[in-house]
Amino acid sequence: MLGVCAAALLAQAPKGWVKGKGYGWIWGAQDEVGALNAIMSPECVRRALSEVKQGRVYDLGVRIDRRSYKWPGHSPIEIMSFRSPHGVKVGKDIAAFAAHPRRLAFHSCALFISDNVGTQIDGLGHITRGQDDHWYNGFREQDYGGDFGLMKADADSIPPLVARAVLVDVAGWKKVEALPGKFAIGPKELEGALARQKIDIEPGDVVLIRTGTLRYWGETGADHARLAEHDSAGLTLDGARWLVEQKGAVLIGSDTSGLEWGGDPTLPVHEYLLVEQGVHIGELFYLEELARDQAWRFALIVTTNRIRGATAGFALRPIALR
Amino acid sequence: MLGVCAAALLAQAPKGWVKGKGYGWIWGAQDEVGALNAIMSPECVRRALSEVKQGRVYDLGVRIDRRSYKWPGHSPIEIMSFRSPHGVKVGKDIAAFAAHPRRLAFHSCALFISDNVGTQIDGLGHITRGQDDHWYNGFREQDYGGDFGLMKADADSIPPLVARAVLVDVAGWKKVEALPGKFAIGPKELEGALARQKIDIEPGDVVLIRTGTLRYWGETGADHARLAEHDSAGLTLDGARWLVEQKGAVLIGSDTSGLEWGGDPTLPVHEYLLVEQGVHIGELFYLEELARDQAWRFALIVTTNRIRGATAGFALRPIALR
Amino acid sequence: MLGVCAAALLAQAPKGWVKGKGYGWIWGAQDEVGALNAIMSPECVRRALSEVKQGRVYDLGVRIDRRSYKWPGHSPIEIMSFRSPHGVKVGKDIAAFAAHPRRLAFHSCALFISDNVGTQIDGLGHITRGQDDHWYNGFREQDYGGDFGLMKADADSIPPLVARAVLVDVAGWKKVEALPGKFAIGPKELEGALARQKIDIEPGDVVLIRTGTLRYWGETGADHARLAEHDSAGLTLDGARWLVEQKGAVLIGSDTSGLEWGGDPTLPVHEYLLVEQGVHIGELFYLEELARDQAWRFALIVTTNRIRGATAGFALRPIALR
Amino acid sequence: MLGVCAAALLAQAPKGWVKGKGYGWIWGAQDEVGALNAIMSPECVRRALSEVKQGRVYDLGVRIDRRSYKWPGHSPIEIMSFRSPHGVKVGKDIAAFAAHPRRLAFHSCALFISDNVGTQIDGLGHITRGQDDHWYNGFREQDYGGDFGLMKADADSIPPLVARAVLVDVAGWKKVEALPGKFAIGPKELEGALARQKIDIEPGDVVLIRTGTLRYWGETGADHARLAEHDSAGLTLDGARWLVEQKGAVLIGSDTSGLEWGGDPTLPVHEYLLVEQGVHIGELFYLEELARDQAWRFALIVTTNRIRGATAGFALRPIALR
Repeated sequence: MLGVCAAALLAQAPKGWVKGKGYGWIWGAQDEVGALNAIMSPECVRRALSEVKQGRVYDLGVRIDRRSYKWPGHSPIEIMSFRSPHGVKVGKDIAAFAAHPRRLAFHSCALFISDNVGTQIDGLGHITRGQDDHWYNGFREQDYGGDFGLMKADADSIPPLVARAVLVDVAGWKKVEALPGKFAIGPKELEGALARQKIDIEPGDVVLIRTGTLRYWGETGADHARLAEHDSAGLTLDGARWLVEQKGAVLIGSDTSGLEWGGDPTLPVHEYLLVEQGVHIGELFYLEELARDQAWRFALIVTTNRIRGATAGFALRPIALR
Repeated sequence: MLGVCAAALLAQAPKGWVKGKGYGWIWGAQDEVGALNAIMSPECVRRALSEVKQGRVYDLGVRIDRRSYKWPGHSPIEIMSFRSPHGVKVGKDIAAFAAHPRRLAFHSCALFISDNVGTQIDGLGHITRGQDDHWYNGFREQDYGGDFGLMKADADSIPPLVARAVLVDVAGWKKVEALPGKFAIGPKELEGALARQKIDIEPGDVVLIRTGTLRYWGETGADHARLAEHDSAGLTLDGARWLVEQKGAVLIGSDTSGLEWGGDPTLPVHEYLLVEQGVHIGELFYLEELARDQAWRFALIVTTNRIRGATAGFALRPIALR
Repeated sequence: MLGVCAAALLAQAPKGWVKGKGYGWIWGAQDEVGALNAIMSPECVRRALSEVKQGRVYDLGVRIDRRSYKWPGHSPIEIMSFRSPHGVKVGKDIAAFAAHPRRLAFHSCALFISDNVGTQIDGLGHITRGQDDHWYNGFREQDYGGDFGLMKADADSIPPLVARAVLVDVAGWKKVEALPGKFAIGPKELEGALARQKIDIEPGDVVLIRTGTLRYWGETGADHARLAEHDSAGLTLDGARWLVEQKGAVLIGSDTSGLEWGGDPTLPVHEYLLVEQGVHIGELFYLEELARDQAWRFALIVTTNRIRGATAGFALRPIALR
Repeated sequence: MLGVCAAALLAQAPKGWVKGKGYGWIWGAQDEVGALNAIMSPECVRRALSEVKQGRVYDLGVRIDRRSYKWPGHSPIEIMSFRSPHGVKVGKDIAAFAAHPRRLAFHSCALFISDNVGTQIDGLGHITRGQDDHWYNGFREQDYGGDFGLMKADADSIPPLVARAVLVDVAGWKKVEALPGKFAIGPKELEGALARQKIDIEPGDVVLIRTGTLRYWGETGADHARLAEHDSAGLTLDGARWLVEQKGAVLIGSDTSGLEWGGDPTLPVHEYLLVEQGVHIGELFYLEELARDQAWRFALIVTTNRIRGATAGFALRPIALR
C-alpha cells in the first residue's frame, strides 16, 4: 500500500517547488514553516515510511555535556544537579520528602544551555538580513523580535518531521575518513558521491551530507582540535542552489557544526537556505553508522522541543529508519 | 510484511516479561534501559509501524514558555534572547558580522530550564529510595550520583522509541471534559475505559491514559489554577501494577504532570514503575486530538534530547502515527 | 580634622547642584556617574566619615534566596550547588581532587540571578524613555544597548560610595510599624518626619526613606503577601523633586522594592531621578535597626559588584557607620 | 579620638589570637565567622578608620564579563540583557509599559554566574576535608551541605568588613612588574618586602600580598595566557602559617586567582586557612594603584552580597581608604 502512495507522489513535483527556482516565500504571509510545507501530507508520510523494510533504527544525535564542541559565539552548556537525594533529605523544604516512610527522594537537573548546541535544526528565524533585520518571509525584528526569543518561525513552529531522506557520502566518495578542513562541496562533488552510491535525490527529499567529521565526536565532543580540523568542510552556495533548485531538497543537513563551507565567513548558504528559500538546515547529524551500512535512503524522523521562542532545535536525536 | 511480524510477536510475550510479575531488574547489572529492552527489536519496530495506515501525524507535546504550569519544586523556565540582530551589530564582538556586506546578523537563545518541564519522560534515575539512595537496578548515589546529573540511567540512555501505543480514555469513558481532581484510576477504571473503546492492551504496548487535563493547557499552560484543578487525577498503585503485571505495559504515560493519583503524596507509582519495574513514565502527553479522532491504537515515536546526565526527557514532542 | 572638612563643605553647595533645578545632564557628554559626581572628592569622603563616632556598623542589606520577594517581571533567583564534595570525589574530573591525599574537596555554586533583586541601586541606564529609548545623558539604545547589558551607565560605573546619609523615618513619624499600601510620601510627609527627628538634609546627602516594609522581610523575604501589603507606600514625584531640587539629595533610597509611590504605574519618579536628574535610586535598604537606634545621620558605604553591563547593583550589603 | 582607640588596641593581641597558634575553632560550636570575630568590635572599626587621613578611595575590584579569566573548573559567566526597551515594547507583556504615555521602557539583565569569579573572598565552607567532608568548625556535608549552597558558613555569614589592612608588595621588593609563575612566597619573602616598605603587620590586620599579576587584567581579564603566566605565584604553607601564627593576620588576600603557591596542587594553604584557622582568603584583589602610591596601610572595607548559600563573595569591589 505504501508503495502506491510513493509512486503517485513521484509522478509529480512536491507542492510548491519549481525546478530552477526552488521554494521561497510562497506559502502565505504568515507562514512559519517554509519548504517543509511541501511534505506535510499523509501521502508524504506514507512515502517516507515505505523506506522502512527491516525495522532498524539509527540514532543520528550526538551526546553533549559541558565540554562539547560548539561554536564559541554561543552560550555555554551546564547540566547541573538541581535536586539530589542528599539535598532533598537535608533541605527538608518539600513536605512529602521531609520524612518519607520509604526514604524516597529524587534527582532533577537545571540546565543552562544554548539553543544552538549538539545536533540541531536551525529555525527559519536564526539568520537575519538587511537594515530591517528581516528573516524568512519578511518577518522583521521590529515586529517579531523580542526578549524571549522569536515570535515568528521559532523552532517550535518546525513541524514533526517524517520524511524520506538521502545520505550523500562525500567522504566515502573521496575515500577518506573525514574530509580535510575547508573542503568545498559543490554540485560536482554531490554528483560524484551520488554516482558512486548509485542513487538520486528526488524532489521533497531531505538531504544529509557526510563529511566524516563526527567520526571524532567520541563520547561528548571533547576533542575540539580534532573536530575543528574537519568541521570547515562543507556546502558551497552553488551546492546549496543545486540541491534546492535542481533537486528539490526540503531540508539540508550535514555532520558539521555549520553545514556550509568554512571558506566564506559571510554565511551565504545560511542566508540562501533559511532566509531566501525557507529551507531548514541540519547540523551535527551523526551519519557514521548509516555510511557504514551503506544506508543511502531511509525514513528520517525528527522532532524539536516544544519551547516557544527557541531559534533552533538543539541536542536533538533524529532517527533514521530502514 | 509488517503484519506478519506483528503476528509473530503477538504469539508470545515480549522478551523478559512474566505475567503476574512484570519486568524488574532482569536485564543485567549495568542495564540502564529497563522494560523498553523488551521492544527494541526490529520486529517490534515493524509491528509498531504496522499501525500506520493513513499517514496522519499527531503532535503529543505541549508548548512551554516562562509561564507554563509545572511542579513548583522544579527550577524555572527562561528562554532568553542571547544574541539579537541589534546586539550583534552594536556589539561588534564577532568579526564576521561586525561589517557584513549584506548586513547579516543572527538570533540565538540561552535557556535556563528544568529537565522536568513540559511533556516529559521520567528517566529511571529520577526517583531514589532507601538509606543508600538507590534507583533502578540498584544504582546508588554514592557511585553514580554527581554534580552534572546522573551517571547511570540518565535520559540520554532512553533509546529512541518506536512503539505500539494504546490510548485509554478514562475521561471519555466517564463522559466528562476532564476528570475531577484526585480522581483515582485503578484496574476497574482502566477496564471500563478499554471496554468502551473495544480494545485491549497487549504485552509490549505503551499505555497512555487520558484524564482530559490538557484540554486547559491553551497556548503555553498559563492557567495554573485550571490545570491544577484536574492535574491530581491519576493512576493508583493498583492500576500501575495491573498495567505492568497483567498487561505488560512497557511505558505508562498520561496527560497530567505526575501520572499518579494525587491523593498519596508518597509517590508509590513512581517508586513502583521507575525503581522496581524499570518502566518509564510519560507526563503531560497531549491526548486531546487522539481522543477526538478515537485513535485508540497507533505508533508512538518519541526521542529525548541527547544531554548527558539529564534526569528526564523534557519539553518533548512525541508523535503518534496512524 | 574631619570636622574642619565638613564645615568647609557645608559652607557651599556641592559641585554641580543648583537650588531649584537639581543636577541633570551637566557632567559632560560621556558621563555615566550623574549626581554622585558631586560627592566624589576626598573632602566629601572625610565629611562622610566624620559622622563615625562610635564605630558601630549597620548592615542595610536583606538576605535573598530562591523564594525572596521581588517584582514578578524580573528573572528568578536560583543558587545552585555546582560542585559538591560528593560530586567532586565521584566525578573525578579534576586531577587535583581525584585522589587527594587528605581527601580535600570543595563547594562552589552557580547562580542564575536577576540584577534587580535584593537590596539594590538602580543604575542610570535602568529606565529608558521616548521613541529612541534613551536614558540618562541621552545615551540611546541604538548606540549603547546590546546583548550583554548596558554599554553606558551600567552598575559597574557606579563609583564606590562613601557618603553622608540621612534617614527620614516616615513610618516613625506616623507612629506605625509600617506605612499602609499606597501611602504617598510627598514634601509634607518628608518635612513632618524631619521635624520630628530634628534634623535636616544638606546638599550632597544620600536620603533613605523608611516605610517600615522590611520589618516583614524575615529570613529571606518569603512572606510575599505581607511585604506586598506595604511595598506600594512610596515617594511621589513632588517628593522626589523636593529632595533633589530643594535639598540636593544625590541618591534616594527606601525600604521598598520600587522607592516610588505605587499609585502611579507609569514610574514618574524613576523617570525623573534616573533619566532626568542622574540621581541613583536605592531599593530594599534595611532601615529597621537604624530607626530603632534613632540613627538619623551616618556614613553610608556601598559598593556594587564589578560586573560589566549590569543594570543595577543587586543583593547588596550597604553599611551605615556611626 | 580615633588614635586613642587604636593605641588601646595595639597594647594587646586581638581577642582569640594566640601567638604561635593562631585562631582555630575557638568561637563556639555554631560559629560561622572565624578569625574575623577578633576585629568586630567598635574599637577595631575606629582603629581601621583612623588610617584615613586624605579621604582617598581605591577600588580593589576587577571588572568581569563573559570572557574574564577564571579557574576553568568553575561555571561560566554570562550577563544577558533580559528585558530591553525593544523587547518590552514589542512583547507587551507588562501592562504598565504596553502603552506608556511617555514611551518608558527598561533594561534588566539575567546573570548566569559562578560564585567564584572576579574579586573574591572565599567563605569558610569553600573547602572540605576528610571522609566526612567537613569544613571550618567541623560542619559536615551530611548536616549542612545541600542543593542550594551552604547551610553553615556561607558567604552571607561573612560580616561587613571594616578593617585595618597592610599591603605586602613582593613584586615591588623583587623589582619586577609581576612575579614569575610559581614564585614561592614564604616567610623570608614576606619579611623582605616588609623590610623594604618599613612597616610591620600587627595582630588583627588584613594582609594583602601583591604579585603584580593584575597589572595584566586590562578591561575585563581577557588575556588569559598573560594572566596565567603569573597567576601561580603565591603563598606557601609556611608563609601562611607565619602570617597567622606569628603575625595574627585575620584575612589574607592577593592579586592572584588562588592566593596560594601554584606548585602544590593539593591546596594546603586553602586547607590551613579556611578549614583549620577559620581565616578567610581574598583573591584577585587589584593592588596596582595602592602599590604605585606606596599606600602600605589603609582601611579596607568590603562587603559580600547577601545571597544565602553562596560559597564565596564574588565580583566584589573592596575599597581601600586612606
